[in-house]
Amino acid sequence: MRVLGVDPGLTRCGLGVVDGRPGKAAMVAVGVVRTPSDGDPGERLVYLERQLESWLARYEPDVMAVERVFADTNITTVMTTAHATAVALLTATKRGIPVVFHTPTEVKAAVTGSGRADKAQVTAMVTRILGLEVAPRPADAADALALAICQAWRGAQLARLDALAAAQGRR
Amino acid sequence: MRVLGVDPGLTRCGLGVVDGRPGKAAMVAVGVVRTPSDGDPGERLVYLERQLESWLARYEPDVMAVERVFADTNITTVMTTAHATAVALLTATKRGIPVVFHTPTEVKAAVTGSGRADKAQVTAMVTRILGLEVAPRPADAADALALAICQAWRGAQLARLDALAAAQGRR
Repeated sequence: MRVLGVDPGLTRCGLGVVDGRPGKAAMVAVGVVRTPSDGDPGERLVYLERQLESWLARYEPDVMAVERVFADTNITTVMTTAHATAVALLTATKRGIPVVFHTPTEVKAAVTGSGRADKAQVTAMVTRILGLEVAPRPADAADALALAICQAWRGAQLARLDALAAAQGRR
Repeated sequence: MRVLGVDPGLTRCGLGVVDGRPGKAAMVAVGVVRTPSDGDPGERLVYLERQLESWLARYEPDVMAVERVFADTNITTVMTTAHATAVALLTATKRGIPVVFHTPTEVKAAVTGSGRADKAQVTAMVTRILGLEVAPRPADAADALALAICQAWRGAQLARLDALAAAQGRR
């Protein structure tokens, strides 16, 4: 399963592509889309949409995994993050690619075993799991890879549980 | 000046088109785009985008005026409103139509003279200003028309002030 992980943001939007199945994960690509914080709000969304379309066309993921953001002390950050999330959701849906959301706690638990891990631990585990020689930077890039790993591992587990439940229902 | 007012939302997105200049305003169209609250989040955005594109193509507004939402007691509502706002911003920008934001207080002050007017007062004034025989319903539709009136009136005033400032600067 190929997953495009998206750590949504307008100033920095982390993107990470991972091929994986439970216990295995290999990095395909990683990057960050940046738009200037003093740029026109509409032009920033258009630029992000074009970059996301380019990644989807180039890497053809089976699924997009996006961080579910609840709140922040900075209302402006919440809004621009929500706008970036909407662009990701819209762009993937128009290409027929399913979008799943994971909370930061779910992602941390999937890659470190603890939902309360800090950023350094997440980056260290992402680096180890993917067998990278250097840690991915900035943090948004590492977070996007962690999201993709989380979905590649948890998504497959959830799909197996669904299949099991369906099989039991048929008995 | 023709303005498309957008009261952003996913369950109900109010749209109102007004032709106006300070002190004058005529309604061109009003409506509400609805998507089911239990629908797929991505499909809801795609549907809203298509409806907005259709309105922009049909009515060719000079500017889009969107309500600036700060916060709400319900975080889910804040997020879906932000997603709808992003879709409106993206869609207009891709057509080269400028987008302006007005706070609810600015809109209320523009149409009723008081930033603390209630919904009934706003609807009553919108109905009177536009010379409508019946009040626009639901409230989202009236709010979208109020936004468009606010921009047609305030936008022109601000443009005049800008021109005046520029003329004085040239002396």
